[in-house]
Amino acid sequence: MGFTHFDENGKAVMVDVTGKEETLREASATGKILVSREVFQAVRAGTIGKGDVLGVAATAGIMGAKRTWELIPMCHILPLTNCRITFDMDEEEYSISCTCTVKVTGKTGVEMEALTGVSVALLTIYDMCKALDKTMEIGEIYLVKKTGGKSGNVYNGRHSGRERQGQKKSGRREIELM
Amino acid sequence: MGFTHFDENGKAVMVDVTGKEETLREASATGKILVSREVFQAVRAGTIGKGDVLGVAATAGIMGAKRTWELIPMCHILPLTNCRITFDMDEEEYSISCTCTVKVTGKTGVEMEALTGVSVALLTIYDMCKALDKTMEIGEIYLVKKTGGKSGNVYNGRHSGRERQGQKKSGRREIELM
Amino acid sequence: MGFTHFDENGKAVMVDVTGKEETLREASATGKILVSREVFQAVRAGTIGKGDVLGVAATAGIMGAKRTWELIPMCHILPLTNCRITFDMDEEEYSISCTCTVKVTGKTGVEMEALTGVSVALLTIYDMCKALDKTMEIGEIYLVKKTGGKSGNVYNGRHSGRERQGQKKSGRREIELM
Amino acid sequence: MGFTHFDENGKAVMVDVTGKEETLREASATGKILVSREVFQAVRAGTIGKGDVLGVAATAGIMGAKRTWELIPMCHILPLTNCRITFDMDEEEYSISCTCTVKVTGKTGVEMEALTGVSVALLTIYDMCKALDKTMEIGEIYLVKKTGGKSGNVYNGRHSGRERQGQKKSGRREIELM
Amino acid sequence: MGFTHFDENGKAVMVDVTGKEETLREASATGKILVSREVFQAVRAGTIGKGDVLGVAATAGIMGAKRTWELIPMCHILPLTNCRITFDMDEEEYSISCTCTVKVTGKTGVEMEALTGVSVALLTIYDMCKALDKTMEIGEIYLVKKTGGKSGNVYNGRHSGRERQGQKKSGRREIELM
Amino acid sequence: MGFTHFDENGKAVMVDVTGKEETLREASATGKILVSREVFQAVRAGTIGKGDVLGVAATAGIMGAKRTWELIPMCHILPLTNCRITFDMDEEEYSISCTCTVKVTGKTGVEMEALTGVSVALLTIYDMCKALDKTMEIGEIYLVKKTGGKSGNVYNGRHSGRERQGQKKSGRREIELM
Repeated sequence: MGFTHFDENGKAVMVDVTGKEETLREASATGKILVSREVFQAVRAGTIGKGDVLGVAATAGIMGAKRTWELIPMCHILPLTNCRITFDMDEEEYSISCTCTVKVTGKTGVEMEALTGVSVALLTIYDMCKALDKTMEIGEIYLVKKTGGKSGNVYNGRHSGRERQGQKKSGRREIELM
Repeated sequence: MGFTHFDENGKAVMVDVTGKEETLREASATGKILVSREVFQAVRAGTIGKGDVLGVAATAGIMGAKRTWELIPMCHILPLTNCRITFDMDEEEYSISCTCTVKVTGKTGVEMEALTGVSVALLTIYDMCKALDKTMEIGEIYLVKKTGGKSGNVYNGRHSGRERQGQKKSGRREIELM
Repeated sequence: MGFTHFDENGKAVMVDVTGKEETLREASATGKILVSREVFQAVRAGTIGKGDVLGVAATAGIMGAKRTWELIPMCHILPLTNCRITFDMDEEEYSISCTCTVKVTGKTGVEMEALTGVSVALLTIYDMCKALDKTMEIGEIYLVKKTGGKSGNVYNGRHSGRERQGQKKSGRREIELM
Repeated sequence: MGFTHFDENGKAVMVDVTGKEETLREASATGKILVSREVFQAVRAGTIGKGDVLGVAATAGIMGAKRTWELIPMCHILPLTNCRITFDMDEEEYSISCTCTVKVTGKTGVEMEALTGVSVALLTIYDMCKALDKTMEIGEIYLVKKTGGKSGNVYNGRHSGRERQGQKKSGRREIELM
Repeated sequence: MGFTHFDENGKAVMVDVTGKEETLREASATGKILVSREVFQAVRAGTIGKGDVLGVAATAGIMGAKRTWELIPMCHILPLTNCRITFDMDEEEYSISCTCTVKVTGKTGVEMEALTGVSVALLTIYDMCKALDKTMEIGEIYLVKKTGGKSGNVYNGRHSGRERQGQKKSGRREIELM
Repeated sequence: MGFTHFDENGKAVMVDVTGKEETLREASATGKILVSREVFQAVRAGTIGKGDVLGVAATAGIMGAKRTWELIPMCHILPLTNCRITFDMDEEEYSISCTCTVKVTGKTGVEMEALTGVSVALLTIYDMCKALDKTMEIGEIYLVKKTGGKSGNVYNGRHSGRERQGQKKSGRREIELM
């Protein structure tokens, strides 16, 4: 099986979804940012008081998800019917996890919208905290769930075994196809 | 030291850079995507023949870097004078690394532009390969180098010890302030 | 009854319209700009000759209405099927009124598109006349009509009594829910 | 004195600022939204707890101010060095005032950016509260202060006499040219 | 028959397509760029090796087609289901032809999207080659095919007689309405 | 001499203009659209009455020129200081010519901005007239003048001999390098 995003001359094309059915499609993606203790505490203080970094990040992530088709060259314009961003703060590793869930009734899925929403939200956290820490790291961005498409539902189990053949320190997760 | 991105009422603000000097500023960021062997080989085949995934990703990353200020709420509009994206394929872990270097003569730095360029380039790779693999993961996005600002130059050593106090499995890097 | 735009953690979300029916929806909004006599006469002269301020403003307003979802964080992307902007010049108070009517067949209404169209059109008039007058004022922007949604039709009577309990000098209008 | 925004054929043009000097310029604009008591109380509750309407509106306003040149046809692209949005809640008339202050070192002023920031912030409040109230009204949007340009500083006194010749109920303010 | 894009006051409006049926619509447009022999050979070398000008141009053209509604004031937002760009190099006249084909299931056609895709792709070629040649020319941009709308299918025969009454050196093509 | 837009790996890059001097730069481009007699007369009627196609096209062209860097992947963001669009109607061949002149004080030229302004203006004319004529053609888009850069001034003589070696029917113009 080869790429679906190139024509017979090797030039990139949008995948033709004209003949596909409009169905309800949903996708969730996640990712996290590792921060210093100082940043972690400042962000947490903000969520219960003044200076709500995560509020700005949620807004930016939703706006970013809507603009996915402008950023990712071969993505289709989709009239998203829902976008929701949540955060989870892990005090043990001083990390902030972000999950973005997107829905649409359309001819193609919204996994790129969910991944883009996560990425923009995490970049926004980075931006607002970068005066405090120059060593933050964004990572573990992956698709958690995808339902509604012809290719079957996808559920990536989070805490499953992370090793795959040929991948040394990957953090890749088990996948169940339903 | 607290956030620079909030005013006294706790509302987010752009940092005021009016009084800062215009200097040459440069930043490099990196990140990677973990893919399946099938995807890895298909991408590598494309770079030497038809279906150049990395060519599309480089274009998207540059365009994304230029739009950073539209995506990240508190970023300043900056007239970038250079943006360059390169890729490095690691056959051992089936990963593709991306580095984005951005330059500007301006009143504030371009680290967010470099990080956004990396993120959009990696998301584009994801998009073009997602028909082949639903378990790809984007990660290890961080600032490699930043020069030219008042806050001093930053160099994050890549292969330095990854553990920091309080961070279990972080992959965080040493930082040298020069 | 509380906000529909926040989740249980108080983070902003797009309202989920996935399950709503696609129906024909229409909205009209209005607003006005108060200008000096000099500006008023120059604008009026332009509409019958050279320098058509209102023509530029109508174009800008339509383009702005289409971009509502990019500007207003929680707005849905909607494939507008019609957008129309009209102006009315009131010589007595040297004001220019603007009305924007938008239609869509979609899962959510277009009142924000109509209000954004009006706002951008009035800001454009301001921009083109600001060399002549620094004291112009934009105001009385409100929803005139909204039909087609589940929440019932809305008609805001324009010349109805403007006072409501608790509002001293509001200019608010009667509302009929049908 | 005629329009500066039209050429000799009556076609709109950007004003040529090529020969103007780069100076520090600043502008502040204000505006308000009249809401129901229910909305007023819900917004106020959010600012001290969950559901921070004004936080989202501030973010949207700043992002809108940066995009002024995309919305207003004849506006110049300007690399804003600062943008700040504040709100003031008036319990007597159930209104929320918004002020947007913008700075740049450039060849032309930023009054349109300040006015656009206010407009987008107020539209965002409208959007997030519209499920509770269909009769909100946005108004009294005007330039408060403008400094740094060749045309002299402008200060519009807020509580000054509002009546001008030929304007019945305008709410226009005195202006002092310094 | 008059313009459909103006109302009774002569102000531009989006054509109201609310009542039109959603059908599958497709359009193809073409255009070409005339270049120097040096540019021609450099572009051709790139397509089989390093420096793929046409790959970047295809990506830009697809992204441009998706943004047609942002550029052309009265165009409707359409959720394109396919966009494909191909190039053809003519060694005899040192020209590069571009064809863009767009599909949608919608209430109005996609001819502007096809024409915009061609224009942006050709401008991108120009940009990437302009250091080598300042006399390139873009031209012969026209609609090749349009199917699916109420107004009937359109096929513009490419090599048909180019002269029409009243047009001296036009390059206009025969048209068959089916 | 090879491409400046590719790095040593053949990946596209923005040309690095960091070290270039900020100078006043200006560029003019032109292009035309061939229309039917019916369209020609309708457009001309509009310019002196209602339905001003060229007014809308000028506005769209200016807005398009400002967005060049968003459309053309390797273009730099430039704070244009002037943009002007003019039209010329040729009754003999039923064509409408468009000229776009752009100025900036910057580190790189604005020829792409001028060419993009022309292209968007002509596409807008096409859009607004397409209900009357499906065979319009856009062409003869080229750079007329470019001043202020290191590479020397460029003046393309319009009515000069159009044939060049190896180009059969090109319409290419003489070029004088000053």
